[in-house]
Amino acid sequence: MGYRTINEANEAVIQKIIVAAPFLTNVVPAKSVIPELKEYVLLHAGPPMKYENMTDPMQGSCVGAILFEGWAKDEEDARKLLENDQITFIPCHHVNAVGPMGGITSPNMPVLVVVNQESGHEAYCQMNEGIGAVLRFGAYNEQVIKRLHWMKDVLGPVLSKALRTLDEGLNVNVLFAKAIAMGDEFHQRNIAASLAFLKEIAPIITTLEDVEKEHCTEVIQFLADTDQFFLNIAMAAGKAMMDAARTIEHGTVVTAMCRNGENFGIRIAGMGDEWFTAPVNTPQGLYFTGYSADDANTDMGDSAITETIGVGGMAMIAAPAVTRFVGTGGFNDALETSNQMTEICISENPNFVIPTWDFKGACLGIDARKVVETGITPVINTGIAHKIAGYGQIGAGTVHPPIECFEKAITAYAEKLGFNG
Amino acid sequence: MGYRTINEANEAVIQKIIVAAPFLTNVVPAKSVIPELKEYVLLHAGPPMKYENMTDPMQGSCVGAILFEGWAKDEEDARKLLENDQITFIPCHHVNAVGPMGGITSPNMPVLVVVNQESGHEAYCQMNEGIGAVLRFGAYNEQVIKRLHWMKDVLGPVLSKALRTLDEGLNVNVLFAKAIAMGDEFHQRNIAASLAFLKEIAPIITTLEDVEKEHCTEVIQFLADTDQFFLNIAMAAGKAMMDAARTIEHGTVVTAMCRNGENFGIRIAGMGDEWFTAPVNTPQGLYFTGYSADDANTDMGDSAITETIGVGGMAMIAAPAVTRFVGTGGFNDALETSNQMTEICISENPNFVIPTWDFKGACLGIDARKVVETGITPVINTGIAHKIAGYGQIGAGTVHPPIECFEKAITAYAEKLGFNG
Repeated sequence: MGYRTINEANEAVIQKIIVAAPFLTNVVPAKSVIPELKEYVLLHAGPPMKYENMTDPMQGSCVGAILFEGWAKDEEDARKLLENDQITFIPCHHVNAVGPMGGITSPNMPVLVVVNQESGHEAYCQMNEGIGAVLRFGAYNEQVIKRLHWMKDVLGPVLSKALRTLDEGLNVNVLFAKAIAMGDEFHQRNIAASLAFLKEIAPIITTLEDVEKEHCTEVIQFLADTDQFFLNIAMAAGKAMMDAARTIEHGTVVTAMCRNGENFGIRIAGMGDEWFTAPVNTPQGLYFTGYSADDANTDMGDSAITETIGVGGMAMIAAPAVTRFVGTGGFNDALETSNQMTEICISENPNFVIPTWDFKGACLGIDARKVVETGITPVINTGIAHKIAGYGQIGAGTVHPPIECFEKAITAYAEKLGFNG
Repeated sequence: MGYRTINEANEAVIQKIIVAAPFLTNVVPAKSVIPELKEYVLLHAGPPMKYENMTDPMQGSCVGAILFEGWAKDEEDARKLLENDQITFIPCHHVNAVGPMGGITSPNMPVLVVVNQESGHEAYCQMNEGIGAVLRFGAYNEQVIKRLHWMKDVLGPVLSKALRTLDEGLNVNVLFAKAIAMGDEFHQRNIAASLAFLKEIAPIITTLEDVEKEHCTEVIQFLADTDQFFLNIAMAAGKAMMDAARTIEHGTVVTAMCRNGENFGIRIAGMGDEWFTAPVNTPQGLYFTGYSADDANTDMGDSAITETIGVGGMAMIAAPAVTRFVGTGGFNDALETSNQMTEICISENPNFVIPTWDFKGACLGIDARKVVETGITPVINTGIAHKIAGYGQIGAGTVHPPIECFEKAITAYAEKLGFNG
C-alpha cells in the first residue's frame, strides 16, 4: 500500500492534517463552484439518503430552500415537487461541501470558500444564519426566507468584496489558534473566533467604496450578533483539511463524520469515498425553556467535521464554558472528556494549543481501530432541533456515533488489505 | 463604628463591590471632568510624589504630555518647566482618575468616563494607546505625540458620539463576565474583552451621521488592533467600584493599590483617603528580545486597581494563556496562584464566574489583615518599562506589593479603633 504499516499510513494522514493551510478566500453563490447544483437539485447533510426518509425538520428545510429559489409558489407546491421526486438530492460531502444540521443547500445560496493552500483543495459551506427560527433547524417561514435573500443579496456580496481585498484570504488556522485559547471548541462555542473574524473583516468593510453605508452597518451588526458565525468557516476549513488527508488513501484515520437524521456516516482514509453507516442516536443535553427530550430530533449535520479534525466535543477542555450549555458538568468533566478522547486519537495537533489543557495540542487523528478496540466513540457537541419542522433549535447537547460505523469500516479495510479475505 | 465587628464592616464593603454597576458612558477631555486639571497641571500614577523622584520613563511621559499640550516648544524647554517646579502634580487617584504605568494625564487628553450606576461614582482613565513606543511607558517621540493628537481629535470624539447613542452607556460588568470566560484576566490579557467592546461599538460607529468614512475606518481599525484597549476601561470601572466601596469607611478591605516607580501605595476602607506606602519592587518576568532584568524600571501604574477588584494576577486561573506572557508557568501554576490568593481574600465575586476555576467566582475583597497574618501579598500582572525613557515596554511579568504597606495600614487602623492607642 506504499506504507509498510497501518501506523505509517496513519502518520502520513495526520501530517496532511498538520500541514493543511485553510484560507477563507471568498463568498460566492453555491452554483458557481458546485456545477452539480443545478435547478431542482439540493444538497443535504450526512451520507446519501432519500427525501422520504428525512426527518420532519430536514424536509422543512427542503421546503424553505425551494421557496427561496422560487421553484414553487407556496409550501403545498413545494411539498408536491419533493413528494413526486422532482428534486434531486446530493450529499454535501460528495461535492466538496459541508452543511450544518439539515445541510440543505440550494444553487443560489451563498457559500464560504475555504482553500487549503497546501493541497489546493477547496471546500464550501453556507453561512450561519444566526439563532432562533433558521432554515438549518427546519424553519421555513417568511422571516427565514427573507433572511436568506438578504444573505444572498447583501451579506454574501459584501463579505466577498472584503475578502477579495486580501491577497490570500484569511488564514483560518490563525483564527483557530487564537480562539482555542479563548474558550472556543468550534462546534457549540465559536464566540471568540467569530469576534476574531469580525475584528479582521469589519475595518475592511468600512473601506469598501461601492457598498452602501446601510449595508455596511447591517453586515457588521449581523456579524457582531452571530456568535456561531465562525462554525461554518470551521466546517469548510475542516472539510478542506480532511479532503487533503484523504488523498493518502491508506490507514484507519477517520476522515469524515456526518449525520442525516437517519444514518450516521463515517469515512476512513484507507477506504476513500466509501461511507460506513448505522442508524443515528439522539443527542442528550439541555433544552431551552418549554422543551424536553421528547421533542428532540435525531442527530443530523455535517458539523461533526469539527470533531473529525479534533475540536468540537473532542476539545471540550478548551471550552469549559460550553459545558454549561451542552450539559456536561464542570471543568473536571470537560477535562475527563478530552483526556478520554486521547485514547482513540493518534497524536496532538501542534497548531491548536489548548492553555486549559496545560498547553497540550488538540486531539489529532481519530483512529477507527482504537474506537473499536476501546469501545470509546468520539463525543460530538451539537445543537438539538425540534422533531417537528418550524420550531428550530430547542437545545444543545452531546451525541455519539454508533460504534457499528467504525466496526464496518475496520472490517472493510481489513478485507481490502486481504486479512479477512 | 456602625458595625459590630471588622468582619461585618468588611462584609459591607464587599457588598458594595458586588452591587457596583459600572457603565462606560462617554469619552471627554480630561479637563472637562477634572477641574483640578488646569494648565501646567499633570496627573500621575500612584501615591503622591515629586517630579525629582520620578523614574526616567515617568519623567519622559511628563515631557511628552507637555509637548502634546504645547506648553513648551521642545524637550529642552519642557525639561526646564519640570525642573523649575513650574508643573503641579496630582495623583490620579485624588481626582477620581486612574492612569496606566506613568499615568501622566494632561488637560486635553481624552478620558473614558465610567459611572457606577449603583452609587453615582464617576471614574476616569485615559485610553490605551496600543503597544510599542507609547507615552505611558515613557516614550515621547513625534509619533507618540501625533498619536495622542489623533486620539484627542478622532478616537475620543468618535467613541463619544457612539457611546452617547446608548441610553445608559455600555454595561462594563457584562463585558467582564463574558471575557473572563474567554481567558482574560483584565490586566495583561484583555483580548476577549477588547473584542467584545469592538463588537458593541463598531456597528454603532458605522451608523454615525457626522463622522467621515475615513475616521470610521481608522477608529474601527485601531480598536481591532489594540488588544489591551479594555484594560483602561477595566481600570476606570475598578476605580468607580472601589470608590463606592470606600464610602463604608470601616474595615480592612484594600480599596486601592497603586505604584509610582518610587513607592507602592495602598488604601484600606477603614482609613479613607490615607495612603500606606513603602518602596516598590521591580517586576520579574519575561523580556522582549534584546532586553533583560537589568533594563527593567521599578513597578509603576494605577493598573493594580484590577487586582484590587480581584482580577489581574489574582485571577491568573481565568487566563492560563497569560502565564506564557508573564512567565508564571503552566495551567497548574496559574491554578495554584489563584488558589493562594483566596487565602488573603474574603469571598468570591458572583459577577465574575471563572469556568477554568470550575465556575468559582473571582477573588473578592483583599483583607489587609489576612495579608499581614499569612505573609502572602497580592500578585500583580504588569507590563515592564525600560528604565530609560524612550524605549517603551520591554516585557511583562508579575510583581508584589511590599508587605510594609499592609502592616502600616493595619497598625494605623488598630490605632484609630483604639486598640494600640
